[in-house]
Amino acid sequence: MSSTPIGQCQPYDPRNANYPLNLWWVAGRSDELEDGKLVSRKLLGTDVLLYRKSDGSVAAMEDRCIHRGLPLSMGWLDGDKIVCRYHGFKYSHEGKLVEIPTQERCPKRGALRTFPIVERAPFLWIWMGPEGEADIEEVSDFPWLRDPNWVWAGGHLNIMANYMLLKENVLDLTHFPFVHQTTFGALDDYEAAATFVQEGSRVAFIKEFNNQPLSPIYNKDLEWGDRLVNRTDKGMSVSPAEHLFTATIVDPNAGPGERSEYLFRFQHLTTPETNTTHHYWWAASRNYGVHDDASAWIASIAQTAFAEDKEVLEAIQRRINESPAPLELPEVSAIADQGGLMARRQLQAYMERESR
Amino acid sequence: MSSTPIGQCQPYDPRNANYPLNLWWVAGRSDELEDGKLVSRKLLGTDVLLYRKSDGSVAAMEDRCIHRGLPLSMGWLDGDKIVCRYHGFKYSHEGKLVEIPTQERCPKRGALRTFPIVERAPFLWIWMGPEGEADIEEVSDFPWLRDPNWVWAGGHLNIMANYMLLKENVLDLTHFPFVHQTTFGALDDYEAAATFVQEGSRVAFIKEFNNQPLSPIYNKDLEWGDRLVNRTDKGMSVSPAEHLFTATIVDPNAGPGERSEYLFRFQHLTTPETNTTHHYWWAASRNYGVHDDASAWIASIAQTAFAEDKEVLEAIQRRINESPAPLELPEVSAIADQGGLMARRQLQAYMERESR
Amino acid sequence: MSSTPIGQCQPYDPRNANYPLNLWWVAGRSDELEDGKLVSRKLLGTDVLLYRKSDGSVAAMEDRCIHRGLPLSMGWLDGDKIVCRYHGFKYSHEGKLVEIPTQERCPKRGALRTFPIVERAPFLWIWMGPEGEADIEEVSDFPWLRDPNWVWAGGHLNIMANYMLLKENVLDLTHFPFVHQTTFGALDDYEAAATFVQEGSRVAFIKEFNNQPLSPIYNKDLEWGDRLVNRTDKGMSVSPAEHLFTATIVDPNAGPGERSEYLFRFQHLTTPETNTTHHYWWAASRNYGVHDDASAWIASIAQTAFAEDKEVLEAIQRRINESPAPLELPEVSAIADQGGLMARRQLQAYMERESR
Repeated sequence: MSSTPIGQCQPYDPRNANYPLNLWWVAGRSDELEDGKLVSRKLLGTDVLLYRKSDGSVAAMEDRCIHRGLPLSMGWLDGDKIVCRYHGFKYSHEGKLVEIPTQERCPKRGALRTFPIVERAPFLWIWMGPEGEADIEEVSDFPWLRDPNWVWAGGHLNIMANYMLLKENVLDLTHFPFVHQTTFGALDDYEAAATFVQEGSRVAFIKEFNNQPLSPIYNKDLEWGDRLVNRTDKGMSVSPAEHLFTATIVDPNAGPGERSEYLFRFQHLTTPETNTTHHYWWAASRNYGVHDDASAWIASIAQTAFAEDKEVLEAIQRRINESPAPLELPEVSAIADQGGLMARRQLQAYMERESR
Repeated sequence: MSSTPIGQCQPYDPRNANYPLNLWWVAGRSDELEDGKLVSRKLLGTDVLLYRKSDGSVAAMEDRCIHRGLPLSMGWLDGDKIVCRYHGFKYSHEGKLVEIPTQERCPKRGALRTFPIVERAPFLWIWMGPEGEADIEEVSDFPWLRDPNWVWAGGHLNIMANYMLLKENVLDLTHFPFVHQTTFGALDDYEAAATFVQEGSRVAFIKEFNNQPLSPIYNKDLEWGDRLVNRTDKGMSVSPAEHLFTATIVDPNAGPGERSEYLFRFQHLTTPETNTTHHYWWAASRNYGVHDDASAWIASIAQTAFAEDKEVLEAIQRRINESPAPLELPEVSAIADQGGLMARRQLQAYMERESR
Repeated sequence: MSSTPIGQCQPYDPRNANYPLNLWWVAGRSDELEDGKLVSRKLLGTDVLLYRKSDGSVAAMEDRCIHRGLPLSMGWLDGDKIVCRYHGFKYSHEGKLVEIPTQERCPKRGALRTFPIVERAPFLWIWMGPEGEADIEEVSDFPWLRDPNWVWAGGHLNIMANYMLLKENVLDLTHFPFVHQTTFGALDDYEAAATFVQEGSRVAFIKEFNNQPLSPIYNKDLEWGDRLVNRTDKGMSVSPAEHLFTATIVDPNAGPGERSEYLFRFQHLTTPETNTTHHYWWAASRNYGVHDDASAWIASIAQTAFAEDKEVLEAIQRRINESPAPLELPEVSAIADQGGLMARRQLQAYMERESR
């Protein structure tokens, strides 16, 4: 796998990997690993096997038997050990070859590469960089997704486009009126660019919607009708792996002792699958409302909208893939692209740190 | 895009473009551009957006937003302007970026490449060579297709084979008894090679069928039965883009004042899509007969026959595509291939002129 | 086609051909060539046309017209001659161009490459190495498949994996309990590795199952129930093209004058199609039993089991195909792999002989 530092220009060349290895990336969701289930997932170009051990923790290792190369995910579990379907080679959850059925001893060098994996429900985070450089303190967490005062819904899309196309998409919501005419487009006024700020290595946009009625997606539960309220949206590319959006809604007319602040958050979690495809996990969460039908409506709107993004991003990537090398597509940026361009520099910094 | 001059040998190497840019090529048909319809078509390796303006003329430009690369054909028209579906970038029909919804001013360098396009109904001709070298005087026209004394039918095939395979196909009709046994094969005596002539840059074949009964496709309207008449076929590769076939039928027994000459014409119009695929527009026209059922029968026969050619040409191309580079397929030519070989030289001359 | 000598390591690089040309390979089965039938089959990377002549022998030649490259298998036979569907070029069964319909004489250099082909029913063997080096004495034969005292069933699979993956598969039957749990897995005790021996250029394994009840696949006809008998399995890679397995069953309790020996044989015949795919013909034969339902049951078990192998081998090859060049997949071998590793050296010897 070759990594190329990127400049201002498009980081989407299908021939180059444009993702840092030294980062915790989402590998999947907690609820995927039902009892005994083997999940095979290509992450950062490598096939990874995921399963839950009897102690509840998760194992992650190369999904390729070191013997003759069969994906281990085609085999089965024996307790916490994984058995290859071809000749029954058995590995511990630490990737160590512990049994060859036809002989007494195993060669010592028989070991699969394993990956540090940390569960921060509802997500699983994996480290695929050099062994020993993983720092568990750096794993992200969204504790509110486990907080009983919050409700959330989420989904997973496998998008046939470089993950940076999605990163740029969620940093510039002025595409709402065009891509999401019938979903998010109806929600909000993103007709003007947001304000972009750099917060350390993080890239954020901020936009205020004050003294306005609340958009339907936020209003569904509150049922405030046309009441004029204040809302501040903040979207942040925390790292190449993670984007967090928070809408802070304030009711200026809340009486004393009445609740006045409400939060709505989108998590956008992207993990490269190959140079031209990625996994996208999203979660829409809020700390108000318990209406089941509101939740279902929000999930359905979000699902439809993200499918609209998928269609757009994949059309862009198809054209990129057909372009001759070296990739030098003409590109004109708008003011609203500031955040996306900052995210490219954010990525570049991650990549440079890695090649030191 | 690389262009390689060709020699006597096969010009079909999938790795090389074997088409001149400095030529008017058919881009589509007039009747494709219904009100507001956006047509995206890959021509000479480039994705082109086509639409009809309010004044009735046609716009042709790169089908790729200069902002972030979405095909503009996924957007919509606003009057004569095209709006990108991603962030609403708006372009004039001259490809000039005229509006970014989120800001007041547009960068001046925001321009799409446009292409001269000329309508000669029922066909649209495009120039994709260097700007300023397009000469509208050189655009072909088939005025008889607009003449009320003529009737015609036509179709479009997207053939997964290099366009030169079709050029060679229509220059040597001795394939009729083999490829078109149940369609054109029953029509005509192409058991011997035609006579080939060079007329300036044009390549033609001529074949006379004198004192013979008329083949069914010509006879359908005339209903002459076995009457012995004279027919002269002339097929001409006018350019790499255009092949014109004319059958001139003469009734030697026409009395004084009676009509004695009848014309039947096939237009074969080929435009490369990629190095290994092309667009093929055909039209079958005649200046006699107004029987609707004859027209339908002729169209149906032609459609079936061209599908037979498609099957043959695509089988040849598949084998070419699987051949290792450099392409040096053995090839033995027959006398009947003279025209096809002359067409390769015709193409070579076009290519050499371009690389000067 | 490039040939690379292989070492101990994996010979499956999709970028290299790992098969000798100087060898008789199976091209098909006798019963495929019904009257007038044209079979097109890619063998060792070359498209070959096969058909049966009027004298009952078989013709094999390049499946590509020397004129303009159409597969001749799209044409038809005229007696023993093959007619191209495009322009009617006609070739003798010796590949000589004998007629161009539109001219009197044929160019002398118009000849297709033909291939020596020998029928040893039920198989056809082809030689694709240098002309003149084919030695008919070296063609394999399985005369028992034509012996009325034997019964057999067989099949053909087109496996999307390098043929050496199958060679190694049939040399190490310890995969039975894992891949074939519900088919062969239930049959036999292949829980320990066999003994491997080199017999000249041949590689074999031997394993004895003495004083044991007979496995169902062997017992189906004999109906011996739990009677304790002796069985010796011997599997042999005769060449890269051929693997022969024989189970010799001996009934120690047979009375004087009673039959005591029974043979069951599997033929595993592999022919590379491309660098990453192969043809696999198998035949299961035995010299006892005439129960039709036993034969059907054996054929059905074998078919299901070989489909299980196909699934495994194709999963391995997909991962190989996705691996970056140069191919250096980690590999740990077991004692049971001895035979497979010997087969790689067997192949290497064939390849080296060829490059002298």
